[in-house]
Order: sequence, then C-alpha cells, then structure tokens
Amino acid sequence: MGRHGERIRLGAFHYISGHHVAAWRHPDAARDDRLEDYVRFARLAEEARFDAVFLADSVDVRLLHPDGAARKAHTGVTLFEPLTVLSALAAVTSRIGLIGTASTTFSDPFNLARQFASLDHISGGRAGWNLVTSNDPEAALNFGHAEPVPHARRYQRAEEFADVVRGLWDSFGDDAFPRDRESGVYVDLEKMHVLDHEGAHFRVRGPLNVPRPPQGHPVVVQAGSSEPGKELAARTAEVIFTAQQTLAEAQAFYADVKGRLVRHGRAPEHLKIMPGVFPVVGRTRAEAQAKFDQLQALLQPEVGFELLRVQLGVDLRGSDPDGPLPDLPATLASQSRQALVADLARRENLTIRQLYERIAGARGHWQLVGTAADIADQLEERFVNYGADGFNIMAPTLPGGLIDFIEGVVPELRRRDLFRTEYEGRTLRENLGLKRPENQFARSRRQAAE
Amino acid sequence: MGRHGERIRLGAFHYISGHHVAAWRHPDAARDDRLEDYVRFARLAEEARFDAVFLADSVDVRLLHPDGAARKAHTGVTLFEPLTVLSALAAVTSRIGLIGTASTTFSDPFNLARQFASLDHISGGRAGWNLVTSNDPEAALNFGHAEPVPHARRYQRAEEFADVVRGLWDSFGDDAFPRDRESGVYVDLEKMHVLDHEGAHFRVRGPLNVPRPPQGHPVVVQAGSSEPGKELAARTAEVIFTAQQTLAEAQAFYADVKGRLVRHGRAPEHLKIMPGVFPVVGRTRAEAQAKFDQLQALLQPEVGFELLRVQLGVDLRGSDPDGPLPDLPATLASQSRQALVADLARRENLTIRQLYERIAGARGHWQLVGTAADIADQLEERFVNYGADGFNIMAPTLPGGLIDFIEGVVPELRRRDLFRTEYEGRTLRENLGLKRPENQFARSRRQAAE
Repeated sequence: MGRHGERIRLGAFHYISGHHVAAWRHPDAARDDRLEDYVRFARLAEEARFDAVFLADSVDVRLLHPDGAARKAHTGVTLFEPLTVLSALAAVTSRIGLIGTASTTFSDPFNLARQFASLDHISGGRAGWNLVTSNDPEAALNFGHAEPVPHARRYQRAEEFADVVRGLWDSFGDDAFPRDRESGVYVDLEKMHVLDHEGAHFRVRGPLNVPRPPQGHPVVVQAGSSEPGKELAARTAEVIFTAQQTLAEAQAFYADVKGRLVRHGRAPEHLKIMPGVFPVVGRTRAEAQAKFDQLQALLQPEVGFELLRVQLGVDLRGSDPDGPLPDLPATLASQSRQALVADLARRENLTIRQLYERIAGARGHWQLVGTAADIADQLEERFVNYGADGFNIMAPTLPGGLIDFIEGVVPELRRRDLFRTEYEGRTLRENLGLKRPENQFARSRRQAAE
Repeated sequence: MGRHGERIRLGAFHYISGHHVAAWRHPDAARDDRLEDYVRFARLAEEARFDAVFLADSVDVRLLHPDGAARKAHTGVTLFEPLTVLSALAAVTSRIGLIGTASTTFSDPFNLARQFASLDHISGGRAGWNLVTSNDPEAALNFGHAEPVPHARRYQRAEEFADVVRGLWDSFGDDAFPRDRESGVYVDLEKMHVLDHEGAHFRVRGPLNVPRPPQGHPVVVQAGSSEPGKELAARTAEVIFTAQQTLAEAQAFYADVKGRLVRHGRAPEHLKIMPGVFPVVGRTRAEAQAKFDQLQALLQPEVGFELLRVQLGVDLRGSDPDGPLPDLPATLASQSRQALVADLARRENLTIRQLYERIAGARGHWQLVGTAADIADQLEERFVNYGADGFNIMAPTLPGGLIDFIEGVVPELRRRDLFRTEYEGRTLRENLGLKRPENQFARSRRQAAE
C-alpha cells in the first residue's frame, strides 16, 4: 500500500519543553534555555531519519495581558532566535534539515536572505526558511509600529519579500568562483547578477554577498491557510505546514493548494503538504490516554482562558467556561487560526473549557492519542488518500514525546514501507524530493538566447 | 616587567583566506566558504587561549567598480554572515569568546539584540557584538537608501541603537524564571521590564523575548576612531579594535579614550583597547621578510589601485603609481580610515605603489615583520607603555599565519609572563577582566529605594 513508492516525510517540530502548554510542568520535560537540549532533540530526529528539525518563532513576549493572573504560568515567554540555534545545530549534525521561522513583517530581506544563505552553506545544503507574516499586536510595538500591520498589507509585503529574497539567492551562478590561484581570477563577473529590485515595499540593489546556496535556494516553507496565504504558498512555497482536523478537510486543502500550482507553472510534486500532528503514544490505548490526562491535569484554568485569547483574539473571561463558545467579533488575530479553533468548537460542540483543554496540546492541530499502530493507521490513511505528503510531529513533551514517537510509530511506519530507513540525498531538498531551482538570471539569459 | 600583573589580551581576527589582500592566491591558504575552516581557526585560537575569535562583516559585495579590470581578482566579494558562523562555532568550542560585527545602520535593534542574546545563551556567555556603522555606498543601496547615510546621522542612530539593545538585554532579571513545576509559576513578572523606548530613530516597546544573557550583556566592541566614534565608545564600548602605527599615536589614542570614560562614570579598566596587528613571523628576520615578499608578489597592481579607492574613497588610476599621493578631496568614505591611510603615506613619504603595497596586508593596521622575539618586543613595548591592553591578530594567511603566531609569538609572550596559559573565567567578559553590568531596571529600583 502506498503512493507509487512515495513515502511519508517527517518534520520534528521543536517547541521549548514540548507542544502541550503545560509540558514544562511535566517531570520528564527538558528546560527551554539550554543548547544541549536542542542538540539532543536534533540528534534523536536525525538518528530516526526525519527530514528536518523545525523551529517556530515569535518576536515578542507571548501571552502578555493587562491582567497578569495567567501570565506567570506560561512558557513561551522567551524563545531563542531560530537562526542562531539552527546554525549551532548545523555544526553538530550532518544530514537532517534545519528549518527556521522568520517573519517578513519585521525583518529586512537583504539581512534575512544572507543569514539563510549562510546557514545553507554552513550546513552543506540543509537550510529551510519558514516564511511567515506577524499579526501579534505586541510584536508590532517592538518594531516602531503603533498597531498591528493589517492582514492584506502583511501579505503584499510577504509576496514582495519572497521575490527579493529568492532573487538575492541567485546573485551568483553556481560556478561563479573559479578561485584560480595561478591566473589570479577569483570571481567570474559574468556570473554575478544585480537584482535591482524596486517595488512598493522594498528597494534592494544586490548582489547578495554570499555565494549561491548549495541547494540553489534554501527550502521555502509556509504555514498560511488564508486565501492570500494559499496564493503566496502556491507561487513560492515548497513545503506547507498546515493544520486540518479531518480527512475530508485535509483532502480539500490538499487538492485546493496543489490545484493552484499549475497556474504558476509548477507541478504538484513541487510542493509538499505536511500538517502538524500532536501524537500521544502509549503501549496500550489506556496508557496513551493516561499520559494525555496527566498533561491535561497540569493545565491551569487561567492558562486555558489566556490560550483562547491568543488563538481567537478575543478575551472570553467572564463567559461561563462550561457554556458554548459565543459568536466572535472580527479581530486582527490571524483569521485562519481563529477560524480553525472556532470551527473545532462548533463541529464537536465543545464548551469553552473543553475547547481550551482540546487545544492546549496541539493548539488547533491534529491530535492523536493511541498505540503506535493506531497512530500509524491514521497517518497512513491521510497519506495514501492524498490528505498529506508528510507530517510535522509536535511531541507533547520533549524529549520524551519525541522518543515515544520514534520508538513506537517510526518502526510501525517502516514495517509498512511508509518511511525511509536511510537518507536518500545529501541536502534537505533532495530528501524532500524537491527539485533544485534554476538560477533566475541564468534562465533569463538562456531564454533570451533561445 | 608588566603592568601590575595585568596581561595582554588577544583576539583572533578571522578574514577569509587571510588578511593580506592576495592571501587567497597563497598555496597554503584555506578557502573562504567552508565551515570546517572556520572551525579549525577557532579551535586553534582556543587551544592557544586567545580571548576571542573576531569576525568582520560587510553588507554588500565589496570592491565593486564600474571598470571591472580589478574586480575579478578580489576576495572579500562574499562573506558568510557572522552570527550564523559564530553560532556554529559556539557548538564546537567551549571557552573562546565569539565576537561578530553587525551594523547599526542597516539592522533592526530588536532582531539584533535577540540574536546576540541567543548567541550568548547558546555559547554559555561567550558572545561579543562589534557595533559598527556602515558607510559603503553600495551597502546603502541594498537597504532602500538612494545614497549613503551621512556620518553624523549614522552616529546618532548608533547611539540610540546601542541604548535600545542594552535596554532590551535587561528585559528580565537574572533570576526572573523560577520555573517551579509544583506551583506552576514559570516566570516572576516583577522581574520582567518593559523598555518603552521612544527616540528620534526607534520606537521599541519590549520586553525582549529572550532571558537576560549569561554575561548580563554580550561584550560591546567598537572600532570607530573619529570624534563621534570615540565618544560613542567611551559611553558604551568595552573593547575597542583600533589601528595605530606608532607608539606615540597609540599612547595618544589610549589616553584620549580612557580619559573620556570618567565623564560617563566609568573606570579605565572598563574598556580594553586592542589595536589590530598584522604579524609576519619567521625563524629569522630574513625568513619573515621572504614570507612577506612572497605575498606581496601575489598582489596584482589593479587590485592595489582598487584597494586605495576603497580605503580613501578616491579613484587614483591615471596618477603616476611611482609619484606621491595627491591631495585628497573630502568624500563620504570613513573619515578616520581615509586619514589613517593618507597620514601613513605622508609620514613615510610613500609613492602610490608603495602605499598600496604597504596596506595590502594590514590595511592601515600595524604591520610587524620579524622573528617571534622581535614581534613580542614590539607588543610588549606597546603594552607596558599603555599604548594597548591587547591586540587583535590579523594573520597574513589562514590558517598558516595564525599557526606561525601561536607557535612562535605566544610562547615568547608566556616566557615574559605577558600572556595566560589557562583561561581565568568561564565567560568572555570574565576572561577580558570586564565587570558584569547591573540590570538597568534593577538599578533604578534599587536607587529609588535608597
């Protein structure tokens, strides 16, 4: 059973002590401020032949609120910056991909293009950029804005940002540096390209002062599920980390996004769709449920309300926690995230309390509690029915939850010939089965000559 | 002989294949695009107990010129981004400091504060930030500017930038994270501080979403020798990398900058002055000279003219290479750099050719060609006579030139009890003998309570 020899791709999504909001209180969970814990995580994932480590990011202290009641109980207050962490991991791993989140809303395209190009060189072609826009009101205040950047403007900027960055990565041909000691020719200037970008948001001349990355371009990853998010992804993304609860939703999203690729001259295999999965693995179903219950018991109610405020953009304190979710006003919160969480409540008829308990782990992502075979069944079903090309594993606790997945679910997937036993390629791009992009300037010249 | 038990500090300045412009053509020089060469360099320097590795930076393709004659022969066209390289080095070294250059002209203070704070955590307190302003006309074009940012404005921005970054590093008290699993208290909000900065260049609310760095603040390094540069350094820098040719000049600079500290409530030992040194070490003077001659012979004349154009901001092609340096017009080039190079030509009565040959190695820094004892004599003289607190070693070729220094000059300095045999502290700050800064918010509260 399978998809013509295709196999599942796996990302290992690192998040502080684990993805469950209360994970930091779990006795086995790692702290969140030591490089050694990141290194252990990356090495575990590499030994298991995951495609990549994935780091989320934010550019503000999350979960701030004028009423401090819940704040003191939150992790996610601080987070090391992904490019620095991934660069450190590059030096102590050799095969696993290194995907980091960086915002187009509050970064500069030249600096960002350069850092990801450097990471790609340092890692020998293992870098990936998770291109996001930032909607957090607190983040805007850290970058000179009086209020959040509106959704449409964020996506216009992101579109242009992606073009600038990809253009800068093509500043040199792959063979632009003869470094010929005898003749004294270091660089072949015919193979240096000036971008000369002028747009609504950016004016960037180039060239980038880093050679073309080993992968041509670091792999571009996106997560947006809104309409402009899907359009941006169809044009520029090579991996989508997304969140769908049901097979039908996943299939609809998969078909929608893959269908958009043609308009941009791309084939369906040029974009891999990898939803987030929050797996709680037990030797029995009862053990899995007990593990999950133990984590839920660590969740403090005020943290639950705060979590909903962040996901929905609405403060629900004062509402009856055992009543239904009220109608929500339009907010500046991420529209796709609000819809995802609100739809979950309505579909499953959840009270406010049940809703926050439900999203405390997977935060709107797909949650699977069961044996390794149960979870492999679910992943297989979604994969073979074209609901996903792979999954981004959001372990409930770290490193314990990842080890559970690696020791239980990975061998089960291998028995079904659904996951690799050895890396196929040297680069992240090769392992994901993505083509190496042609240099846009070389392409223009080639086309002009034809 | 010495300075009351004080010893010389040493930085290992990494620059592609070496600091001599023609180093890349030398048969022993490393390439400039492989992490392994950076790792080897850092480990050599760490084994020799250098205080820090130092990485320069630029944010454009250097040495561009409308006439391409010289360009193809240049290294320095590309350069990995320092924060990514240093983060990788953090994972494979354990004691040496990691100092990286980042521009205040074209970076954002929140992102930069966060990356250096992350590097400080990842490295266990070994990060240093070389705070620079950027005057390159080509760099400005990569960041939306139509022309270079004027000198005065760059320094006003740098002043404010430094205040924002240092304020953000103080966003949390050193003990702000009890992470008490039992009670569920993760963060002590009394120890979280909102910067709320509003100035002429930046509006940044904070807090930074990284815990306070292990060093309190990464060590702040500067290089400016202009009047506003010296003032900025006297207020904010803890190390100055500078360039003086003669003992008298070095003493004047040393006294000038140290004298300014008092006005800012600082003691002379709070700032270490470490001029760049370009050492060519031989077992005999003749061997040292032969090594240097071998490098000079690799220097192509068109590269020499191009080098002068970059250093002086003036294109001298057409002038007689064997004639004197003409009077120079005021330019937008770094005023201190232009003065440094022009003064050298006039003091030593150099022709244009002699000048470019002279700066091809040290690029205006102090150049020493001789035996290990000769070079140690010079360093000792400058150190004991308060012309320097240490030196930033700019090896002619890498790694060969650094190995020559480590095998020859370092033991000679140790014989004179002028250099350590073991690290004194765990952090860069401790090894440099710098105090750990008090948190500015904690200080304000303490002072208010007194």
